[in-house]
This record gives sequence, structure tokens and C-alpha cells, in this order.
Amino acid sequence: MRDELITFLQQSLGPNGVLSNANDTERYCLDWAGARGAEPLAVARPASVDDVADVMRYCHQHDIPVVPQGGGSGLVEGALPDRHTPELVLSLERLNRIRALDAINFTISVDAGCVLQEVKDAALAEDCFFPLALGAQGSCQIGGNISTNAGGLNVLRYGMTRQLVLGLEVVLPDGRILSDMRPLHKNNTGYDLKQLFIGAEGTLGIVTGAVLKLCPQPANSRVALIGCPDVRAVMQLYGLARRSCCDLLTAFELIPRRCIELALEAAPTLRDPLDEPHPVYVLLEVAASGELDLDAMIETLFSQGMERQLLGDGVLASSEAQAAQLWQFREAMLEGQQRRGVHLRTDIALPISALDTFHHQAERLVAELSPDAEVIAYGHVGDGNLHFNVLPPTGLDDDDKLALLHDIEEQLFELVTEFDGSISAEHGIGRIKQSAFLASLSAPEYDIMRGLKRLLDPRGNLSAGRILPRSDGR
Amino acid sequence: MRDELITFLQQSLGPNGVLSNANDTERYCLDWAGARGAEPLAVARPASVDDVADVMRYCHQHDIPVVPQGGGSGLVEGALPDRHTPELVLSLERLNRIRALDAINFTISVDAGCVLQEVKDAALAEDCFFPLALGAQGSCQIGGNISTNAGGLNVLRYGMTRQLVLGLEVVLPDGRILSDMRPLHKNNTGYDLKQLFIGAEGTLGIVTGAVLKLCPQPANSRVALIGCPDVRAVMQLYGLARRSCCDLLTAFELIPRRCIELALEAAPTLRDPLDEPHPVYVLLEVAASGELDLDAMIETLFSQGMERQLLGDGVLASSEAQAAQLWQFREAMLEGQQRRGVHLRTDIALPISALDTFHHQAERLVAELSPDAEVIAYGHVGDGNLHFNVLPPTGLDDDDKLALLHDIEEQLFELVTEFDGSISAEHGIGRIKQSAFLASLSAPEYDIMRGLKRLLDPRGNLSAGRILPRSDGR
Repeated sequence: MRDELITFLQQSLGPNGVLSNANDTERYCLDWAGARGAEPLAVARPASVDDVADVMRYCHQHDIPVVPQGGGSGLVEGALPDRHTPELVLSLERLNRIRALDAINFTISVDAGCVLQEVKDAALAEDCFFPLALGAQGSCQIGGNISTNAGGLNVLRYGMTRQLVLGLEVVLPDGRILSDMRPLHKNNTGYDLKQLFIGAEGTLGIVTGAVLKLCPQPANSRVALIGCPDVRAVMQLYGLARRSCCDLLTAFELIPRRCIELALEAAPTLRDPLDEPHPVYVLLEVAASGELDLDAMIETLFSQGMERQLLGDGVLASSEAQAAQLWQFREAMLEGQQRRGVHLRTDIALPISALDTFHHQAERLVAELSPDAEVIAYGHVGDGNLHFNVLPPTGLDDDDKLALLHDIEEQLFELVTEFDGSISAEHGIGRIKQSAFLASLSAPEYDIMRGLKRLLDPRGNLSAGRILPRSDGR
Repeated sequence: MRDELITFLQQSLGPNGVLSNANDTERYCLDWAGARGAEPLAVARPASVDDVADVMRYCHQHDIPVVPQGGGSGLVEGALPDRHTPELVLSLERLNRIRALDAINFTISVDAGCVLQEVKDAALAEDCFFPLALGAQGSCQIGGNISTNAGGLNVLRYGMTRQLVLGLEVVLPDGRILSDMRPLHKNNTGYDLKQLFIGAEGTLGIVTGAVLKLCPQPANSRVALIGCPDVRAVMQLYGLARRSCCDLLTAFELIPRRCIELALEAAPTLRDPLDEPHPVYVLLEVAASGELDLDAMIETLFSQGMERQLLGDGVLASSEAQAAQLWQFREAMLEGQQRRGVHLRTDIALPISALDTFHHQAERLVAELSPDAEVIAYGHVGDGNLHFNVLPPTGLDDDDKLALLHDIEEQLFELVTEFDGSISAEHGIGRIKQSAFLASLSAPEYDIMRGLKRLLDPRGNLSAGRILPRSDGR
């Protein structure tokens, strides 16, 4: 069966269209986070939508499992080849043309395999702006961003990827093409089918193209770092900032003191940003096109916040270099955290108003399970998105660390549920959050999700076992 | 069967919960546009989600057709009781509590039967803003807005209703409750089921509650009316306005000279707004919280537009009264149009960049079919949404007018399709756009939509015949 598949792919996609030996397929078995999947049946690299459809039709007829793959920056092991049932990896990397850009309509039409940065660059070249912004934007593909409903740094102002998709082209598991690539800002005609595939992590169809919404490029921006007494003050300051910076706020990041310290360790060129240390910091950005006095806007916020005792001190970057340096804290702290080896990374969401109470209770929970574990909780306050991470005590060996972190995660997720929160704000479910996800579903939710899967992928061969468990028990 | 139903409803919902005689049910058979449905089996008026579930469970068991109803301001006859198969009207009007408002989280949780204006007022009372704004906001219900994915005046800045819904509670056709009312701004856990019900026009489930996103109230606004040489210039001016007014543009309406004249006829207190008449006008609004110089912003746009010969003249309202007067043109022109009796109203969407060419071709098309018909084409330029309306020649009788308008609509819709447009930008499909809608669907689109209907409403008793035709041919 594998030989026949490979012969079919070679004939159908040409010599560049298929990789079948282990050396060549190796890089499709690894993701950004270092996780590893099994060796796939082969890697198909179609360069057109029709080629994708041909591959899917063949696999449908021959009952061959398929997993689509974008840039490999997922964090939930959704795109890695399955360990139990050999899968064909369908890489979108050669389907990577910018199809059209309409600067008057503020839209861009792209192949799914376009790298996010290329989409952003193409927009910029026409004085437009594609707002999706992620750490992985130099390698992740827009089809993957859509399939995972990626979030990132600009959600506060521009929404998740879902809000940026106007049209979608999808190859269904049976090879049929579902296409609505009309560049329309408004369209209320029947069920909005594209919504099914956005965030479905490639389990219902393969996104091959999209029409995306563009915005005016906010040519001017200002970055400030503000020291606050506690998380409660940060929550209040957020309300103030939304109002005094109007809808121009693009980032409002919570950074605890411990993260500043991790950043200082990881990047020795950085200096402590304010005269005195503060328990928590806010990294804030406003951006605008046109002629607006952004400095005055932030200074008003400073004085209002000071008056209400919501902040102690702050620095407003006076140059692009200084702004970049403030953002560097956000990146260096991740590096500092990474250096500590095995640790728990979460991606939870809560009502913004619950952040403070949740934070306290979660810290207590961790302290009870392991007094020497260290909590590193930072996040996008405006989205209620908290990366509540835990570094285990340094004395433990890796197995003990993993066991401890597993226990902590389980109890944390229970607390998240008590607070009406989400166990995955932006990373998705994939494989690694599946059991916690399934435990959270009501019977009707499960039934409808299972029904959607059956409706669109009746043989269950597409990205099987991600989000929902396999229906056949394989 | 009807008697038993009414007895059940009386027992289950109490005396206020059911209306069964024709005098009482009359008002549920009429909509805003004056269309009339058949007499229903009865009108059920449940006052709690559990009551809605009880009614649906009973109807599911007894195979009774049901149509949910909001405020009755739909324009596609989706909520009117069926003429062929008697239906139970399920009115949400008594399910009308504001459940919670969280000003720090910028969210409000509401029953589906809340009137839109009440939701907006509740937000304002906490210094927040719910941006959905429609002509019918004093009577339409938020559940109806969600079920039809309502658009309205603020789409340019805040999106359609879909973008404002964070959580949803739905009673399924079999009476089960599907509920995710977590007030979360981010949540990437599995298939986003709420998307199925938003814009489904009540055919897949009954929306009973929602969590909505709030924004800061933009306390300051400025309105301007600008005279332009042609639609092409308006398109260019829009790009300029998006940039120089940043993301603060809340309205950018195209108004042809003919509409100004209709408005002047309908509202004799209005005066011609600019010294000279212009072929087309733009009504523009910017709004912001915080301290921004909005006048300077608009003046910059004026001078940039003047320089590029995109505009001839303009007026910036210097008081709230003057701003209201400029908006009055937008309303009075609708009244003027209404006075002309039978006419064709469309609600189409196009790529913004195609507005000019489409407009020319569509005018030619109308002139060929009826040289004396008059075109009134205005719309939300920033959304690509054009109300391309046609007044038939005054000499014809009503039947001839209707026949002519039917022909014009058919050919207009073909032209819309050629231009990659939508035949329903915001009004939906309901019954009256069904045949044009079905003709536009590809086979996979139809199959999946039919599959969704079967998955969620296997007996086909909920809002049967809206969007999709009945599956049983009844």
C-alpha cells in the first residue's frame, strides 16, 4: 500500500512533490517545542489546490490516514505524524503564492502555505497591515494560523485569526474543494461554513487558501513599561488604558518582577528598567496611523494611574531603540525560563476581573503541592490570557519533575474550570490537551463535535485522534 | 394535537406563557416591513431557559413545527409563521434579563429576549459601550441580532454581531441545552460551536442567552458631510480616511445626490448641506474616548482629499445639533424613498474596489430594462455594502411594478455574482432570498449545509423552510 501511494504521489505531484526516505522526512517529525512524531508513510508536497484535492481523493479511496502540516510551530503536537497508525504528511509548504492584494478593499488572498511574515511584508509593500503577530511569524504558515485560530501579540486590538478571515478555500477529506474566496467584508448568506474549519486544527478539512482582512498600517507607536503594586492595580489600570488610549492600545502585557529578573539573567545587556523594583509591571503599546499625539495620550494615562495609586513609576520609550529594548524584556524572560529546563507551560484564559483572585489561589495551590516550585505567571491582560508557568524545584530529577508538574497541571485546570476559564486560550487542543478537554465537555457538546467530525470526515482519516479521540479506537 | 399543545403550554408556562386566540397572536404574524405570516398554532412565551427547553422537548416528542421569534424587525420573512404548515411561535420576549455585567472584563451576559437598546443602556450605565447599532434597536432583540448576525451602522469599526459574541446558550431542537456562557475573550478549545448558531436564522437551535463583548464608550465624536465628484473618488477617499483617521472611523456612508434630494423633500426643515450640489456625498463619523483632537484629524483628511481632487467641499459639524442634522439626511432619504411606494430594495456586498464599476454597469442594466426607473444606490462604503435600490416608473400599476422589479433583481443578482459579490450583505436569507441563494451554492456547500441541518435538527421541525428548503418537501 505504501509503495503504491508513493508511486501515485510521484506521478501526480512530480519528483519534488514527494519525500519518502527517513532522512528527508525527518524534519516533518519534529516541531518547534522539540516534540517528535513517528516516521510518516511519506511527505506529500502538492504545489496547487488541485494537487491537494488529487492526493486527498486518492487517500480517501484507499483509506489512508493523512495529517496536514504547516510551519511546525504548534505547541500541542497536532501536526506531528501519529505514533500508532502510519500517516501521510501533507505539507502545504509549496502552496505559497500571494494570489492577490487589493489595497482599496483592504484584503489579501493567499495560498495556505505562505509564511506569515511574507503575508505581512506583502501587505506592507502596499501601505497596508496584516495584524497577526507571533513569535514564530518567520516560519509559521498562514494555513496553520487559520487552522489553529492563532492569537499572538495583537489580539487585544485586532482579534484572533478568526476575525481576520473573510474567505476560505478548503479541500475536504474526500477530495472535494469547498471554496468561497470572495473578498467581502460582509456576507450573510446561509451558514458561514468557513467558521467550521477555522480553529479545527486540520481535523475537518485542509485549508488551502484564504482571503484576509488588512488594516491601515499604524505608522507611529509608543511603548511604555509601568511598575504597579499588584495584579489588582494592573486590572484597574487596564480599564483606564482602554479608555484613555481609546481603541489604539495594541498591547497590555503583565510581567511579574520575577520575569524581569529572568530577563536580566538571560540578557546581560539589559538594565533594570525602573529605579526601584516593583511587584508587577505592565508593558503597554499604543499605535496609530495619522497624526495623533500618542505621547500626550500615555502621559495622561500615567497621571490618571498615579492619582489613583495604580502605578508607582514608569518609562515611556523616547526612541525606537528604547522601545525595542522594552520589548526585549518580554523575549528575554522567555529565554530565561527556557534555560531552567523542564517546566510547566500553561496557556489559560480567565475573565480579566478574575485574574487577581485566580493568581493568588493558584499560587497557593502550587505552594501546597511543592513549596520550592517557582511560579512565573505573565500574560496578555487585555485578553485575560495568562501563561501561568511553574519551574519545579531544582533538586528533583526529570521524571520526578514531570510527575510533579503533571499533578500541578491537573489541579490548576480544575481551578481554571471553577473560575469559568479556558485551559487553552490560544494554543489549541491537539493531542496533549485532549484528556482535559474531553473531561470538560457536556454531552451535547461532545455529540455535536462528534457529529461534525462524522459529517465532514466520515472515514475518520484526517488528523485522526487530534481534538477528538479516534472513533474507531485505533 | 393543537388543544393538547395548548394545555401543555398552559400547565408548563402558566397563564402568561401562552397566547392562542387569533386576536392575541395577530401581532406575531406581522413584521416591520409589513409582511404577514399565517396564524400560528399558538404563541409560547417562556420566561426561562428551562421553560424553552421544556417546550422544545415536547414539540420534538410530538413532532410539532416551531419558529422562534425576536423583535420582528427581520427583512427576509424568516420569523413569520409558515403559510403551509402550522407552526408554534416561540417568542423570547419574556426571557429578557440582563444577567451580569463585568466592567473590568468588558463583558455583559444577557437573555436573548433583551431589547438591543436595553443592552446598550445597561453597558452605558457602567461606562461601557455595546457597539451594535441598528435602526430597529428600540425593538429588536439581541437573540434575533445574533441569529441573523446583524450588521448595522458600526460594522466598519466593530464588526458584525458575530465578532461581538463571546459566549452562547442555545436550546437544541430536541430540548437539550448547549451552554457555554464563560465570559472569555480567548478560548481555543475544540470546535467553536457557537459559530454554528450565529447567523443561522434560528434554523439550528434557539439562542436563549449570550455573553457579549463591550468596548470603551467613545465619548467624543465628529461628523462631516463631504461632496465628491464620483464614486471612484469616494473609494480613494475611503483609503485616505482609514489611514488619517486611524481605526477611529465609525461611519463612512455613500449618499448620491438623488438621496439628498429625497431627504430634502421628506424633511422640509433640512437645507441643502453644501453651497453647490455634488454628484455624491460621504457622511463620515469618527469617535474616540480619551483626549484626541478629532477636528484636526478631519481637517487633515479634508486638505489631503482636496489636494488629490477627491472632494470638492465639505462641512464639519460644529455642534451635536449640527451632527444630528447631518445624520438626519441619512434617515430622511429612507423616508423619501419609502413614500414612493413599491420599490426594489437590495442589500448587496461587493469588494470596495469594485463599487464604481459595478455601480455603472448596474445603472446601465436598469436603464436597459426600464429607462424611466430611478436608481437610488447608497451604502456603507467601508463594508462594501450597497443598498442598490430601484424606484419603478410612476406610470405602472403595482403588479407591473412588481414584475419589472423582479426582473431587475434577477439580473442584478447575476451581475453581483460576476463581481464576486454577495446578494445579502446583512439581511440574511430567510424565505425571500432562498431561491437566489440556493442557485449560488456549490454541491459541497449545499451538502454540508444540509448535513448541519440534519445533525442539529434531524426531524426538521425548527424554522423549517428558512435558508434551506424543507427536506421532506412539505
